[in-house]
Amino acid sequence: MRLATLADGSRDGALVVVDRATASYTRAHGIAPSLQRALDEWPRCEPLLRALGGRLERGEIDALPLAPETLAAPLPRAFEWVDGSAYLNHVVLVRKARGAEPPEGLTSDPLVYQGGSGVLLGPRDPLVLPDAKFGLDFEGEIAVVLGDVPRGTTEERAASHVRLLVLANDVTYRDLVPAELKKGFGFFVSKPSTAFAPIAVTPDELGVAFKDGRPFLRLSCTYNGSRVGDLETGPEMHFSFFQLIAHVTRTRSVTAGTILGSGTVSNRDSERGVSCLVERRAREILEGGAPVTPYMSAGDSVRLEAFDSSGRSVFGAIEQAVVADGGTL
Amino acid sequence: MRLATLADGSRDGALVVVDRATASYTRAHGIAPSLQRALDEWPRCEPLLRALGGRLERGEIDALPLAPETLAAPLPRAFEWVDGSAYLNHVVLVRKARGAEPPEGLTSDPLVYQGGSGVLLGPRDPLVLPDAKFGLDFEGEIAVVLGDVPRGTTEERAASHVRLLVLANDVTYRDLVPAELKKGFGFFVSKPSTAFAPIAVTPDELGVAFKDGRPFLRLSCTYNGSRVGDLETGPEMHFSFFQLIAHVTRTRSVTAGTILGSGTVSNRDSERGVSCLVERRAREILEGGAPVTPYMSAGDSVRLEAFDSSGRSVFGAIEQAVVADGGTL
Repeated sequence: MRLATLADGSRDGALVVVDRATASYTRAHGIAPSLQRALDEWPRCEPLLRALGGRLERGEIDALPLAPETLAAPLPRAFEWVDGSAYLNHVVLVRKARGAEPPEGLTSDPLVYQGGSGVLLGPRDPLVLPDAKFGLDFEGEIAVVLGDVPRGTTEERAASHVRLLVLANDVTYRDLVPAELKKGFGFFVSKPSTAFAPIAVTPDELGVAFKDGRPFLRLSCTYNGSRVGDLETGPEMHFSFFQLIAHVTRTRSVTAGTILGSGTVSNRDSERGVSCLVERRAREILEGGAPVTPYMSAGDSVRLEAFDSSGRSVFGAIEQAVVADGGTL
Repeated sequence: MRLATLADGSRDGALVVVDRATASYTRAHGIAPSLQRALDEWPRCEPLLRALGGRLERGEIDALPLAPETLAAPLPRAFEWVDGSAYLNHVVLVRKARGAEPPEGLTSDPLVYQGGSGVLLGPRDPLVLPDAKFGLDFEGEIAVVLGDVPRGTTEERAASHVRLLVLANDVTYRDLVPAELKKGFGFFVSKPSTAFAPIAVTPDELGVAFKDGRPFLRLSCTYNGSRVGDLETGPEMHFSFFQLIAHVTRTRSVTAGTILGSGTVSNRDSERGVSCLVERRAREILEGGAPVTPYMSAGDSVRLEAFDSSGRSVFGAIEQAVVADGGTL
């Protein structure tokens, strides 16, 4: 099942079911007005949405042509956005470039941070850069949307709580990070709103490509029209989503609609490229002593898209361009 | 205007208007089913809710007796919970006790962290302690509930975005903090769900006691039946809520229903006591070399309540007892 949210001017947008070709859709307001409501009432809504999707795929209902520019983030606002850092190559590489050791417990204790979730960007929303010195960067990552997950959920029991998979651009102001981390309370101003690809899919849409809580896809990253990354999302995801779920529910439960991210996708093989500029800069520092690639400036653009083994785009594309200042979003 | 949320089994609860004596209420479902919905549509709902409150106060409508045990947090789930640390005495004292310097920029750059907001506890919900070694502590603090606040909002323009004030218990597992902060990504497992007093009030309810973005109230903290704190919330709040709003909207906008906390209330005068145990332990360390007061154990209880200058309880009380393990919340 493939779901999306029409930007209809309401706070949560309007839930639609999308066909496998990402060519047409049908509104689902008879089942739930919004994706959040569907997640709130999943046992009731899931079978109805699946049935609607089946009728759409078989051409049994009137479908409308899908225009990507009319779509918002699947959840334009969410109750929590928790982001992991499960691709350890990224952590090791970035720390190595600044002469730091990998953190203790790197392979046993997941790194996660709590992000802002009240305003989430759609796939074509501009990336606002209020100050060129902020050091704007993108981060391509896969995330899961959860149902209600009780405190103390084990890795073994986590699978049943994964409702959907999505693709995110975890936008970062890199040059605001060091001062903020020094304060010890985690990221805040260094993490502006995160953006999402338009289509949220149920795990069964990935088939065998969702295995043991890891998505086995190819993440394509195109920067200013040039391919900078063609990454494997599966093999090097050290902590699975199931392990991340166990970690985040260690001391509290999370509510339906919580989004949990993998962290920026990263592969050890440098030939595969990057899904964020900081990693490219880290490789440049390690090879030549200094970064060559600048962070994003006004007019730069990024495209993030994930493909399955048949070459089908799973989530649709994130396509964002930088604007020097978009006023107040 | 004084608002509260009946725990009616729904995810957001049912919005009610409460009288000034906190003795009776009337349902507001004709205006908005939930407080979140009222915040979503504040320009429409505010005058209607105020009119309803006026009729309730004048005895013009049938009111029901208020039973505190039927009330949830004003927002049982919220889109963001951002917590500051505006009482610098707390920061200085706790760091001094562990032999650390105050952080750079202490007086000019607010400390805030992004907390979990998908599951917020009601005023009488138990404090679950899955492991006695977690070091359970309470933190009494005032918070504001915001409307939509655009990116780049200045301190001067912040006042118009404050919708409500609330009282929170920002629960912390102290002994999980050091390892987590060492990881550099902020708090996560060390911050279980935050609890809230039942009544949310509009700023005008405080009258002159809400001045320049600071609430001038007395916060009473009772631990196992003994008064441990009787604190002034106004004079030592270094960063006002308006300054905190300017900080949190520096790089992104926040959505209606975002809750922004002051951080644990703390006074330099030790005679005023504490609103958290860690500060009492810090004073014990500084005076005698070692902490005497243990963190909370099963059966311990805390009561937090804020009073205005006439001695009226502004938000109603938080009254929570510790249970060794409440199963899954």
